Amino acid sequence: MSDTALRVGVIGVGLMGSDHAERLSHRTAGVRLAGVADPDADRAAALAARLDTTVHEDPLALVASPDVDAVVVASPGFVHEEQVLACLRHGKAVLCEKPLTMDDESALRVVSAEAALGRRLVTVGFMRRFDPEYAAVRAALASGRHGRLLVLHNTHRNRSVPNVDFRSEMIVRDSLVHEVDASRFLFGEEVVEVTVLSPAPSGHAGPGVVDPQVAIFAMSGGGLVTNEVFVNSQVGYEVRFEAVAERGSLLAGLASNGVLATRVTADGGTWGGGVPDDYRIRFARAYDLEVQAWADAVRAGTSIGPSAWDGYAATAVSTAGMASLASGRPVAVPLADRPALYARDD
Amino acid sequence: MSDTALRVGVIGVGLMGSDHAERLSHRTAGVRLAGVADPDADRAAALAARLDTTVHEDPLALVASPDVDAVVVASPGFVHEEQVLACLRHGKAVLCEKPLTMDDESALRVVSAEAALGRRLVTVGFMRRFDPEYAAVRAALASGRHGRLLVLHNTHRNRSVPNVDFRSEMIVRDSLVHEVDASRFLFGEEVVEVTVLSPAPSGHAGPGVVDPQVAIFAMSGGGLVTNEVFVNSQVGYEVRFEAVAERGSLLAGLASNGVLATRVTADGGTWGGGVPDDYRIRFARAYDLEVQAWADAVRAGTSIGPSAWDGYAATAVSTAGMASLASGRPVAVPLADRPALYARDD
Amino acid sequence: MSDTALRVGVIGVGLMGSDHAERLSHRTAGVRLAGVADPDADRAAALAARLDTTVHEDPLALVASPDVDAVVVASPGFVHEEQVLACLRHGKAVLCEKPLTMDDESALRVVSAEAALGRRLVTVGFMRRFDPEYAAVRAALASGRHGRLLVLHNTHRNRSVPNVDFRSEMIVRDSLVHEVDASRFLFGEEVVEVTVLSPAPSGHAGPGVVDPQVAIFAMSGGGLVTNEVFVNSQVGYEVRFEAVAERGSLLAGLASNGVLATRVTADGGTWGGGVPDDYRIRFARAYDLEVQAWADAVRAGTSIGPSAWDGYAATAVSTAGMASLASGRPVAVPLADRPALYARDD
Amino acid sequence: MSDTALRVGVIGVGLMGSDHAERLSHRTAGVRLAGVADPDADRAAALAARLDTTVHEDPLALVASPDVDAVVVASPGFVHEEQVLACLRHGKAVLCEKPLTMDDESALRVVSAEAALGRRLVTVGFMRRFDPEYAAVRAALASGRHGRLLVLHNTHRNRSVPNVDFRSEMIVRDSLVHEVDASRFLFGEEVVEVTVLSPAPSGHAGPGVVDPQVAIFAMSGGGLVTNEVFVNSQVGYEVRFEAVAERGSLLAGLASNGVLATRVTADGGTWGGGVPDDYRIRFARAYDLEVQAWADAVRAGTSIGPSAWDGYAATAVSTAGMASLASGRPVAVPLADRPALYARDD
Repeated sequence: MSDTALRVGVIGVGLMGSDHAERLSHRTAGVRLAGVADPDADRAAALAARLDTTVHEDPLALVASPDVDAVVVASPGFVHEEQVLACLRHGKAVLCEKPLTMDDESALRVVSAEAALGRRLVTVGFMRRFDPEYAAVRAALASGRHGRLLVLHNTHRNRSVPNVDFRSEMIVRDSLVHEVDASRFLFGEEVVEVTVLSPAPSGHAGPGVVDPQVAIFAMSGGGLVTNEVFVNSQVGYEVRFEAVAERGSLLAGLASNGVLATRVTADGGTWGGGVPDDYRIRFARAYDLEVQAWADAVRAGTSIGPSAWDGYAATAVSTAGMASLASGRPVAVPLADRPALYARDD
Repeated sequence: MSDTALRVGVIGVGLMGSDHAERLSHRTAGVRLAGVADPDADRAAALAARLDTTVHEDPLALVASPDVDAVVVASPGFVHEEQVLACLRHGKAVLCEKPLTMDDESALRVVSAEAALGRRLVTVGFMRRFDPEYAAVRAALASGRHGRLLVLHNTHRNRSVPNVDFRSEMIVRDSLVHEVDASRFLFGEEVVEVTVLSPAPSGHAGPGVVDPQVAIFAMSGGGLVTNEVFVNSQVGYEVRFEAVAERGSLLAGLASNGVLATRVTADGGTWGGGVPDDYRIRFARAYDLEVQAWADAVRAGTSIGPSAWDGYAATAVSTAGMASLASGRPVAVPLADRPALYARDD
Repeated sequence: MSDTALRVGVIGVGLMGSDHAERLSHRTAGVRLAGVADPDADRAAALAARLDTTVHEDPLALVASPDVDAVVVASPGFVHEEQVLACLRHGKAVLCEKPLTMDDESALRVVSAEAALGRRLVTVGFMRRFDPEYAAVRAALASGRHGRLLVLHNTHRNRSVPNVDFRSEMIVRDSLVHEVDASRFLFGEEVVEVTVLSPAPSGHAGPGVVDPQVAIFAMSGGGLVTNEVFVNSQVGYEVRFEAVAERGSLLAGLASNGVLATRVTADGGTWGGGVPDDYRIRFARAYDLEVQAWADAVRAGTSIGPSAWDGYAATAVSTAGMASLASGRPVAVPLADRPALYARDD
Repeated sequence: MSDTALRVGVIGVGLMGSDHAERLSHRTAGVRLAGVADPDADRAAALAARLDTTVHEDPLALVASPDVDAVVVASPGFVHEEQVLACLRHGKAVLCEKPLTMDDESALRVVSAEAALGRRLVTVGFMRRFDPEYAAVRAALASGRHGRLLVLHNTHRNRSVPNVDFRSEMIVRDSLVHEVDASRFLFGEEVVEVTVLSPAPSGHAGPGVVDPQVAIFAMSGGGLVTNEVFVNSQVGYEVRFEAVAERGSLLAGLASNGVLATRVTADGGTWGGGVPDDYRIRFARAYDLEVQAWADAVRAGTSIGPSAWDGYAATAVSTAGMASLASGRPVAVPLADRPALYARDD
C-alpha cells in the first residue's frame, strides 16, 4: 500500500457526516481529511476549524478539487444522485451513505453510469456488513458447517422517533432498508417479493403511524426472511437476528457489549446488559471498520463493500415495500438486469 | 381439599400415556392411578403390573367404572371424540391430550355437549400454559408494566421426524398447533387469519416435505404473530419466543436449564448450554404442574387450564393453516359462536 | 412402592416448616400430613385448621405417635438434637432442616446414635443437592467428559439481613454452611481446611459486621474452593457457581428462570433476567424434589440425600470457619472417624 | 493534533511485535511505521519488505534515529530495561510490552530515571485497560451508581502452554501479572499482600507444574481479589471477571463477541458462543485502541495508559506472588515510595 495518505473530502457534515469527518481525522489509518462541504456554512466552518481542514462552498467543487482523492457523501438523500455522478465523472471513489438515491430510476442511473465507466468507484454505506457480528455469521455460513441458510429473522428497534412529519413509509425506507441489505448480504441472493404487515400500532406511535411493522421477504433462492421493525420501542436501539440453517442457527445482537450487571431496580433485582441508545453506539465499530476498509481498498486501487447495484437493489425492495405497506399484499420486486460489472463474487 | 385421593384412569399408554401414568403414580399429590386401558393388551398389562393398578380392556368401561373419578385421555386423536363424550356422559373430568379431536366439526360437538351439560369437565393438554416461562411471561404482560402486547415471535424446532408417512400438513396440525394455543394464551385473543409460507426446504426434510415453515397469525385484537416451525433442525428441541410489548419485550426459552458449560469441541472451545432432546425433557415441569393443577381443580370441584373451546379453536386454526399451506395465501379462521360456558375469564 | 400414604408430622411451623406442611399436603405424592407441633400454639392451630390435620402440643409426642410414620424437623437448631434423637429411638425417618445440631459434639452424638442403630434414618435438609442445576453439574462431572474437578467458585448473596442481633459468625454458620455442603457434594470429598477472609465491609452491613466474606476451602483430594458470601448485596438472592474441571467448566445460577426481558429503566434500556428475592423462590423446585425423593425413599424402606454424617461434617467446617473468621488464618477441620454406615457410595 | 504523522519504530518483531508493526502500518491513524529492529535479521528484513520500512541492526540505533519519534518495545523482557532507558535518554515516548523489566530493582531504576526526567514517556502494554469491557466496568464503578467496589473475582485461562521449560512461576509472572494490573486498575489501589494457593494440578499440566493456581490479593483500601489462573484449560482463552460492589455487581467476558450459535455436537445439541483461541483474538480491539490512544497522546504531547510506576508495581506483586507460590503463605508486597510524577489522577 502506498505510503501517501488518501485525501478524503466529506460532503454533508450533519450528525453522520461530522462523525465520519472525525473518524477520518482521528481513527483511520492512511487517510487525511481534505475538506468538507455543507449548505450550512457556519457548521462547516466550525468543523473545519476544529479538524484543521478546508471548507468548499460547493460540494461539486469539492468533488472536482485536485486536492481530494476520494469522497464521503453524507448529505441528504435527494442530492446523492448528482454528487455521486459527479464523483464518477471525475473518476473518484465515493462512499455514499444510504440511500444511494431516492428512487429506483435514479439509482439505476448511477448503476448505468458506473457500468459504462467499467470500474467500481461507488460504495454504499450499509455499515452492517462490517459489523463483526454480521461478518462472523456470514463467515460461519460460508464455512458450510451449518448447511444452507433457510430462514432469517431480523429485529430492528429504535427507542423512539420524532412524531412530527413522521410517516409509516419512512419505517420501510429508512429502517427496513437495512434489513433488506442484511438479508441480501447473508443469503447472497436478491429479494424477489416483499410483504409488509401492519399490526395494531403501539400507543407510543404517532397518530396514524403503523409501528411496529412486520415484513416478509422472499429470496430468489427460496429462502424466507421475517422482519420486525419497531421505531418507538421505548427501550433503545436493538438490532438482532437469527439465521436458521440446515444444521444449527446463528443468533446475534443480544449481548453485544459483553458486560452484564446485576442491578437494584424499581421491580427488584435484575441481571443483564444494557441496550445501546442509538446506532452510533451500536455500530461504532462497524463504521470504523467500514471506513478503514474502504480507504484501504481505494488506496490499493480496488473496491470493497456494498456496490451501486446493492444500493439500487435495496431501493427497489424499499419501493416495493412501501407499496405493500399501502396494500397489505405481497408485492414483487422488479429488478433491472444486473450489469456484468456487478457479477456476484462475494 | 378432600383427604380422599382422586382416582384417575389413563386411556392410552404409549409414550405420552405411560408418562402420565408414571406421573400420577409417583409425582402427583392427592391422586391414585385407578386403571389403564390400551388396545395393546400386553403393553397395558406390563405397565399395570409395574404401577400396581388394574387393566380395563375397553376404554369406555374404564370411563364408566365406579372406581374411576377422572380420566386422562392419551389415546390417538381419532378416538378422542368418543372417549371425551363418554366422560361427559358420565360426568367425569377428563384431561385430553391435544388434539381435542380430528377436525372442527367433531371438536365443536364436544364443545356443544359440554355447553349443554352446563359445567366444564374437559381440559385439553396444551401443557405450555403450565410451563413456568410461559406463565411468567403472561404474568409480566398482565402486570401492565410493559404495556400492551403487540407482536409475538415463536420458534418451534424438533431435532428430526421420521420421514416415512410424514406429510407437510402434520407440521401444521401437530406442531404449529402448540403455537396457536400459546398465541391465544399470551394475547388472550382469537387467531382470525393464518398464512403458512413455504421456504425452500432443508435437505434433511423428507422428499416433498415443506420444512421449515413460517406461519403468520393475525389476532382478533390486531396483534400479529410470526412462527417458525422446523421439525428437522438436527439440533434438538427448541421452543423459544419473544413477546414484544409497548414498553419492553420478553424472551423465553434460550437458557431453560440454567447450566452453562465451556467445552472442547471439534470447532474449538465453546461455552453455552444444552438443547433438550425432546418435549418430555423441555416440558417435564410443565407436565407435572399441569397434572397437579388439574387434579387439584377436579378435587376442588372446579376446572382449570385450556378448555374444550380452546381445543376447538386450536383445531379451527390448524384447519385454516393446512388450507393456507396448500394455497400459500392467507386463510380466515371461521369460529362458531362461543358458548357462555367459555366466557373469557382468564 | 406401597399404596399406603406415608404419614408425616412436622415439628416447627415457622416460615420453613409451614412451607413444608403446605408441600406435604398439596405437592407431594404418596404422603399425608399427619400432624404438626409448635411452641406457638395459635400458629400451630391455625395451620392445622387450614391443612386439616391435628396439633401435638409436645413435639416428642408427635414423634412417638402411632399415627406418624416419619417426621420433618423445622424447629430452631437448638432443639434439633433432642428431636432427632427421639426419632432415632422410635425408629422413624426424619428430614431435619440444617443445621443438624448446634455444634460438632452434638452432631457427632446424632451420628453415633444412628451408627449404633445400624441403619440410616436421618436426612439433613441441604436442599441444593436436589436443585436441578446442582444435580446436572454433578451428573456432568460424574460422566467423566470434563475430567476431574479442580476448582470450585461459589457465590452466595442475599438481598439483606436484619441488622439487629446480627453477627459476622452467622454468615459462616447459616449461609456459608450451604457452600460447605455443596462443595462436599460436587467434589465428593471432605473439607480439610478453611480460611475466612474479611474484606472491608459494605456500607450496608451492620456496625462491626464483616460482609461480604471470602472463604477458601481446601478439599481432601487437593481441590480448592473459593466462596463469596454477601448477605447485604441489595440486589437479591443470587446463588451461582462455576466448577472448573480438567476439560471445561460448568457454570450455574445466572439465568435460572429462563425468561429475559428488555426494560426501560432509570439508566436507559436494559435486557436480562430477574434475580429472585429469596431462597424459597430460588430453590422452590429443589425443596419439592427433596421432599418427594425423601418420602419415596422412606416408603421404599431406603434412605436418600445428605446424611447425619453430612450434617456433622458441615457443622465441623462451620466451626473451623468461625475460628478462621476470628483469626484470619487457615484453620484445619478435625473430623471424627467416619462410621461404616456412611461409607461413601454416592 | 498535528497533521504530521508520528514516526514509530518497533523493537522486536516476534508474534507481538510484528502484530504491532502491522497495526501501526494499517490500522492506526496519524502514525507511520519508521523502522524495525530484531536480532533475527531475516525476520526483520522480511517484515520490513512487506511493510515497506527500514531495518535497524541495532535496537539502540533505532531509538537514537532522528527518523524515529517514538518506540514500541516488543523484545524479550530481559532487554527491556536497557531499551526503555535509552528511550528516556533520547526523550522519546515508548510503549513497552509487559513486563516492564525482569525484577523489582530494574523496574524501579526505570521509574527513577523517568521521575528524574520529570515527564512521563513510558507506557506499559497492559492492554486490558483499553478493552471496552474493562473500560466499561471501570466507568460504571466510577459513576457511583453501584457504590464502592468490594470484591473482584478474576478468571484467566489459556488453552494450553508448551510443557518444555515451563515452570509454575511463569504462571504468576506472565499470566497473573495481568490480573495484578487489572485489579489495580479497577480498584484504583495497590496490592498489599498476595497469597498463591496450589490446588492439585490438572493432568494436562506438565510434570511438577502447579496449574491451575488460585491467588488472593489484599488491596490497600481493604478490598479483596480472588484469581484463578489456569493455563492448560484445553478450552481456549477465557478472561472473565466479576466486580462486586455495594449495590450490584458487574460481570464481563462471558459473551465477548455477541454471536451465539446452536450446534450439533457429539453430546447432542448445544447453544452458545465461541471461546477465542488466544489473546490476539480476545484482545484485538484492546490492542488497536491502546496503540491508537498512545499515538494520539504522544502526538498531543501528553501521556496515557499504564505508567512505569504501574509496571514496577505489577512486577513487585509478581515477585511477592512467586514467593508465595513457593511457600503457600501470604506475602506482603513492599513498594517503594511513589514519586510525585505518578500521583494518582486516574
